[in-house]
Amino acid sequence: MMDTRGQSEAPHVLIVGAGFGGLYAAKALAGELVRITVIDRRNHHLFQPLLYQVATAALSPGDIAHPIRAILSRQKNVRVLLAEASAVNLQSKKVTLRDGEITYDYLILATGVRHAYFGHNEWEKWAPGLKSLEDALEMRRRILLAFEKAEREPDEKRRRELLTFLIIGGGPTGVELAGAIAEISRQVMVRDFRTIDPGEAQVILVEGGPRVLPSYPDDLSAKAEKSLAQLGVQAWKGAPVTSISEKEVRVGDRIVVAGTTLWAAGVEASPLARSLGVKLDRAGRVLVEPDLTIPGHHDAFVIGDLADLAGKDGKPLPGVCPVAIQQGRHVAHNIRRACQGKPLRPFEYFDKGSLATIGRAAAVADFGWIKFSGFLAWAAWLFVHIFFLIGFRNRFVVMFEWAWAYFTFQRAARLITGDINARPSS
Amino acid sequence: MMDTRGQSEAPHVLIVGAGFGGLYAAKALAGELVRITVIDRRNHHLFQPLLYQVATAALSPGDIAHPIRAILSRQKNVRVLLAEASAVNLQSKKVTLRDGEITYDYLILATGVRHAYFGHNEWEKWAPGLKSLEDALEMRRRILLAFEKAEREPDEKRRRELLTFLIIGGGPTGVELAGAIAEISRQVMVRDFRTIDPGEAQVILVEGGPRVLPSYPDDLSAKAEKSLAQLGVQAWKGAPVTSISEKEVRVGDRIVVAGTTLWAAGVEASPLARSLGVKLDRAGRVLVEPDLTIPGHHDAFVIGDLADLAGKDGKPLPGVCPVAIQQGRHVAHNIRRACQGKPLRPFEYFDKGSLATIGRAAAVADFGWIKFSGFLAWAAWLFVHIFFLIGFRNRFVVMFEWAWAYFTFQRAARLITGDINARPSS
Repeated sequence: MMDTRGQSEAPHVLIVGAGFGGLYAAKALAGELVRITVIDRRNHHLFQPLLYQVATAALSPGDIAHPIRAILSRQKNVRVLLAEASAVNLQSKKVTLRDGEITYDYLILATGVRHAYFGHNEWEKWAPGLKSLEDALEMRRRILLAFEKAEREPDEKRRRELLTFLIIGGGPTGVELAGAIAEISRQVMVRDFRTIDPGEAQVILVEGGPRVLPSYPDDLSAKAEKSLAQLGVQAWKGAPVTSISEKEVRVGDRIVVAGTTLWAAGVEASPLARSLGVKLDRAGRVLVEPDLTIPGHHDAFVIGDLADLAGKDGKPLPGVCPVAIQQGRHVAHNIRRACQGKPLRPFEYFDKGSLATIGRAAAVADFGWIKFSGFLAWAAWLFVHIFFLIGFRNRFVVMFEWAWAYFTFQRAARLITGDINARPSS
Repeated sequence: MMDTRGQSEAPHVLIVGAGFGGLYAAKALAGELVRITVIDRRNHHLFQPLLYQVATAALSPGDIAHPIRAILSRQKNVRVLLAEASAVNLQSKKVTLRDGEITYDYLILATGVRHAYFGHNEWEKWAPGLKSLEDALEMRRRILLAFEKAEREPDEKRRRELLTFLIIGGGPTGVELAGAIAEISRQVMVRDFRTIDPGEAQVILVEGGPRVLPSYPDDLSAKAEKSLAQLGVQAWKGAPVTSISEKEVRVGDRIVVAGTTLWAAGVEASPLARSLGVKLDRAGRVLVEPDLTIPGHHDAFVIGDLADLAGKDGKPLPGVCPVAIQQGRHVAHNIRRACQGKPLRPFEYFDKGSLATIGRAAAVADFGWIKFSGFLAWAAWLFVHIFFLIGFRNRFVVMFEWAWAYFTFQRAARLITGDINARPSS
């Protein structure tokens, strides 16, 4: 029912996933003589770098998401379908949907990664991860409920446990979550309670490796740890998590009873990759050719977090937006060349640097030729994130929310939605 | 564990429900020598008059909700507890919570109403109502999904059904929902689809009585119907709904197959009222004394939508915010008098008028001494709603969103959250 090849001579480009990779690929094909179909199981593009701000009540879901069809509405060679892909057949050039199928001449797979528990999927219930808006709202619910439950808890020991927040994983997401939770407990919640002192909340960041932000240079990790300490976050390093249950979390030989445990430790590829029948890496990502094609298939590309490709230094490219954006544009370029009968070109990543925030007016930046931290890094972080947000309205509102939060120490979205009696955590 | 009577000599005022009634009662007791506890099963006060705008993607949940404890944080004689009341014992002056109990010297019950299906609770699944943020997000999901499904539907008849929106109940909520859905389909969605023409969506408003807005004067009902017709809404009057199933809705002798059916037809009192063991009206509301006390109990008040009290004209006061606000303040005043040993005073409602909007720049207003419609009524509607929204941040953002929507014909919050494969409706 959705085979569109017969309708016209223009080749059909099917893009699965409208994250940064898929969206920038579609945009880079504007004006080309191709028919593009973008499918996604969400109706919105999500600005994932700010998802932790939704989880910590600083922004609303609508501020960091934008309807895919609104983004692409003026590009006449694109149609957008809300659909979930369940399998890819590279031989017959077909993608199976949950309710139908769709053929392609060129395929761009950009379905990304989701959080993973190293084979312990039972941990998810007690330590949810952060990949979608629903995940963020669930985290927000647990964090805010912990304070509410503590306010009503007569037993002091239990109250202390309820006010313990354990964040597992010391990468950028874990660091940003820990910083934001420390900040709201010390600066925002502190005036609003009568029984508890939210400022006494314990925020513990657990990292299995020897330092936080392992993908950053050593000195920036050290600066990030210092900023976290100033906010009152305890960073436990070299501390592998060995078990997570309803009652407690085991970290090395320590046992933590935390009211709220959050997961920011690992990702695995979208399960769609397994249906390809090609070689995957340990995290389930597709080992792509230098031109981003699937080995043996010149008409099928994988980009963004779902692709495993080594950079100039021989290490795999990181799962960050700039890689996805550049790969999206590069694949559009390669499809244009293929339509003209020209050979495909290998992808080269131009690393513009990394940024991570640690609460109010603190951040670390690594632009390769320069590394810095503190207020300037934070200003750079603000600028870059506003710039890549899609839509004037979202940019304006996010800037307003940040300014508002900065000057008033308030948070815009302190809402608990869903059932308050649902078990929030231990 | 939560008996607070022994702690101090000041009488304990327990307010159940932090809608307009409960909140204004708490605020009006600021500075009094009483200890106030506000309990609510939500952590936020919700501005219900704008809930339909969340349901139709114009506003985000955070724009019309504010944490109760943030609203009351500076009022030192108040504590706020997130808790759900399940029963009231007027004799022992105790409120049973789902997890504990709490005693009072004075009780203010302000738990409002919820939507009701006239004994057909099985209809809720196919025709959800609008009382909470979760309800609004579910409506939004169904409305937006209907367009998405239609875009992928090859069968023309089925596509037309998917683009049929049936709103049951011609009061203000039904009129506002119908107007907003017609508006987004004709003005917002129309550019973003390739297969369907969202402007062809059928929006049907069904009212059992002889005219829409039955609580308004005749001529304003007529004007509202005219505005609805201009937006392309069909208003079926004298059209009682007799059955709602997965497949179809029966309205009189007509059968409608609608992709989305929404309920705005009836309310019933919060079930807490039944635990009082006092006389209730047909909708389950408490028949209160003129001083808003429960008959025979001078220390227990019921206010807002949960109270049934006749106005000067002998008709029951309407379930609108101004009634709740004035009753909240009046009860605060009566508690102050009771503390001083003075007799309680009867409540008198000062009717400031009614307002309802029907889409872009159209509304009807009835201020008693003057009735008007059109742009001026719409401007009055904007002003009044911004004024009663709580919090500068929310006022600013809502004004921005409205201006943005007015000039760009966009909607800020077109997000589908939750499972897209969950059955949205028929």
